[in-house]
Amino acid sequence: MDLFEKILADQGPLGAHADEWHGYFTYPKLEGEIKPWMTFQGKQVLTWSLNNYLGLANHPEVRKVDAEASAEWGMAYPMGSRMMSGNSNLHEQLEAQLSEFVKKEDTVLLNFGYQGVISIIDALIDRKDVVVYDSQSHACIIDGLRMHLGKRFVYPHNNIENLEKQLERAQKVVDETGGAILVITEGVFGMAGSLGSLQEIVALKKKHNFRLLVDDAHGFGTMGSTGAGTGEALGVQDEIDVYFSTFAKSMATIGAFVSSTKEVCRYLRYNMRSQIFAKSLPMPITIGAIKRLEMLRSQPELRENLWNVVTTLQNGLKAKGFNIGQTQSPVTPVFLKGGTNEAGHIVIDLRTNHNIFCSIVVFPVVPKDVIMLRIIPTAAHSIDDVEKTLAAFEDISKNLQAGKYNKPMPTLEEVLV
Amino acid sequence: MDLFEKILADQGPLGAHADEWHGYFTYPKLEGEIKPWMTFQGKQVLTWSLNNYLGLANHPEVRKVDAEASAEWGMAYPMGSRMMSGNSNLHEQLEAQLSEFVKKEDTVLLNFGYQGVISIIDALIDRKDVVVYDSQSHACIIDGLRMHLGKRFVYPHNNIENLEKQLERAQKVVDETGGAILVITEGVFGMAGSLGSLQEIVALKKKHNFRLLVDDAHGFGTMGSTGAGTGEALGVQDEIDVYFSTFAKSMATIGAFVSSTKEVCRYLRYNMRSQIFAKSLPMPITIGAIKRLEMLRSQPELRENLWNVVTTLQNGLKAKGFNIGQTQSPVTPVFLKGGTNEAGHIVIDLRTNHNIFCSIVVFPVVPKDVIMLRIIPTAAHSIDDVEKTLAAFEDISKNLQAGKYNKPMPTLEEVLV
Repeated sequence: MDLFEKILADQGPLGAHADEWHGYFTYPKLEGEIKPWMTFQGKQVLTWSLNNYLGLANHPEVRKVDAEASAEWGMAYPMGSRMMSGNSNLHEQLEAQLSEFVKKEDTVLLNFGYQGVISIIDALIDRKDVVVYDSQSHACIIDGLRMHLGKRFVYPHNNIENLEKQLERAQKVVDETGGAILVITEGVFGMAGSLGSLQEIVALKKKHNFRLLVDDAHGFGTMGSTGAGTGEALGVQDEIDVYFSTFAKSMATIGAFVSSTKEVCRYLRYNMRSQIFAKSLPMPITIGAIKRLEMLRSQPELRENLWNVVTTLQNGLKAKGFNIGQTQSPVTPVFLKGGTNEAGHIVIDLRTNHNIFCSIVVFPVVPKDVIMLRIIPTAAHSIDDVEKTLAAFEDISKNLQAGKYNKPMPTLEEVLV
Repeated sequence: MDLFEKILADQGPLGAHADEWHGYFTYPKLEGEIKPWMTFQGKQVLTWSLNNYLGLANHPEVRKVDAEASAEWGMAYPMGSRMMSGNSNLHEQLEAQLSEFVKKEDTVLLNFGYQGVISIIDALIDRKDVVVYDSQSHACIIDGLRMHLGKRFVYPHNNIENLEKQLERAQKVVDETGGAILVITEGVFGMAGSLGSLQEIVALKKKHNFRLLVDDAHGFGTMGSTGAGTGEALGVQDEIDVYFSTFAKSMATIGAFVSSTKEVCRYLRYNMRSQIFAKSLPMPITIGAIKRLEMLRSQPELRENLWNVVTTLQNGLKAKGFNIGQTQSPVTPVFLKGGTNEAGHIVIDLRTNHNIFCSIVVFPVVPKDVIMLRIIPTAAHSIDDVEKTLAAFEDISKNLQAGKYNKPMPTLEEVLV
């Protein structure tokens, strides 16, 4: 059989509608400066889909440093991997500042979060070891686990009783193999905003022997009294053995980091394949991250603004009877009853008639009769933005209940008229 | 067993010497602007270890565009993955220009080369399919294959007779499974500079049914009459079914791309996990890549300069009796007889007494009694740089043959006195 014929016979769940909706539901272009109001298909839309939690993406101080660092260094420096020829004092300075901030002994910068997570997992475990992980773990965790040759046991999202069962299973395996157990969860789950049950998980360390890796991509900068993340918020930062976050959310750039003990970081520095065999984080991004971290630490009003918007939005939705699930973070899901077709109409209605752009999640990520709209508030949004959005959601909810979205989908051309 | 105790008991081949040599053999800092002469440990060294083939890293035109693009956009835009909220006209423009240049119907930008390759492989094949690949494939290819649940057969580097045997084995498997065969090789092998035997491989398509993926990281920009890569150089670009290159070498930035038919690119756009679930390439990098590509295409003198340096260096080494292996590309290996200890002394001697900084490769990458020095010439090097280097290599070769490096290693403190 021909490989191309084979793959083209099934374009996958997202690719199946690529021809009809490319540029609208998928690969949309949000144009102009990153701020709450951006341009989509030629008109201004109120944007709730960017993880620019602290509003740093377009902050004048950040923009100034980004511009200056690029003018001074260009985008090439340093060349080569950190290990071979890509190390610098500023990379080490950022690592030291991150360590101090997240209260860990040491930190390793990562050239990209996705491959960073894959290589952290790959470096930490071998075929004798068992991983126990939350069922809602991000794709990068799943891909890291797909390289693992040993056992992996999944527990239903935040189900601690089941986690304990999986730990017992895992212990039986490692008793045989001589391996060890790694538990992986997230600080803030980016899809629906729930927190990993970190207090309950670390409490299990009294009875079970395991190490805990937490991916805090959405928690770093948003959670905790200083913004140091979900471990700080839940008072368990010391019990997180390996702490990861990306720079792609609150820090509004690319790259990532992992923090742990001095010895474990040294081990990771010399054993993470995607870091040994690929280019170092470019200098302007490193300098930009130093600036962003300094602002994140010294300007708590950014986080206060964020939470003011979050609280107004989430309380408003609840007051209007919306189901926002288990969120305890800025990530705000709105669960509605309906099918994929109705979901499509809702997005079109929001964009066309309410000028609101937000993400939507449908089957198979949620059950077949559930629609999840996902709102990402930021420090840059206003209370007026929230009120417009609450009114719009009230409107679409009425339409949904009245069956108005239960009709065939239009074409993209019809929508864009 | 405790996971941390376990990993710390074996720091890996590179980590074992981390404490003694961190900052010298590993994690060195090459400071100052990227050019042939840079600062290492406080003194100027002639640098042969950066893949800045065309000298674009620090070219004034490139630096100007990098600075302007960052001033205009900052490092944050666009946020989110291409599919969700990170698409732009300029990303699409760069894709179109790359397609035109490498003579493929379509191109997909990748946010980072390493995870890009992993996800290309992952998206193209499933457990029914068989991969046949060159034994010297880069770590990112190997990591992509480590996710593969089906069979994979390796052939010794460029051994076409063996490749054909592996294809026969693979065909038997896919006859059973109903899957297909993917062959993976590289254009230029970055370690020792040999070219993938692409003409011989594509000739096998007459007898065997497979698709060919070529990683041309070191060939793009350096090989072929227009710099379009190893496929162009060998006259087989049309027979490469999936063409990949990174921006981390000739283009002197980060990011990467994959080119193929329109349909296969659409499929990849909707099925590469590291691209769907991670952030888009930042705008200043996209704009910087557009500039670099334009220069690469419009200034053939960059490539001519490179090859002038390459030819002078490689001919000079051969004239002096050095074994430079099978290189047919700018990557220039120098093979010497000796052990790891002598290799260490050679690097120290080159850096201390000759002010030359180049990479060294020892066991287990090469056999136990082989030392490989790896020289990466660039368009920015001068013939004077080459002559200095030839003289230095002559000197270390004499010392090696006289047994002068056969002595205990000094400490880092002793070296840096």
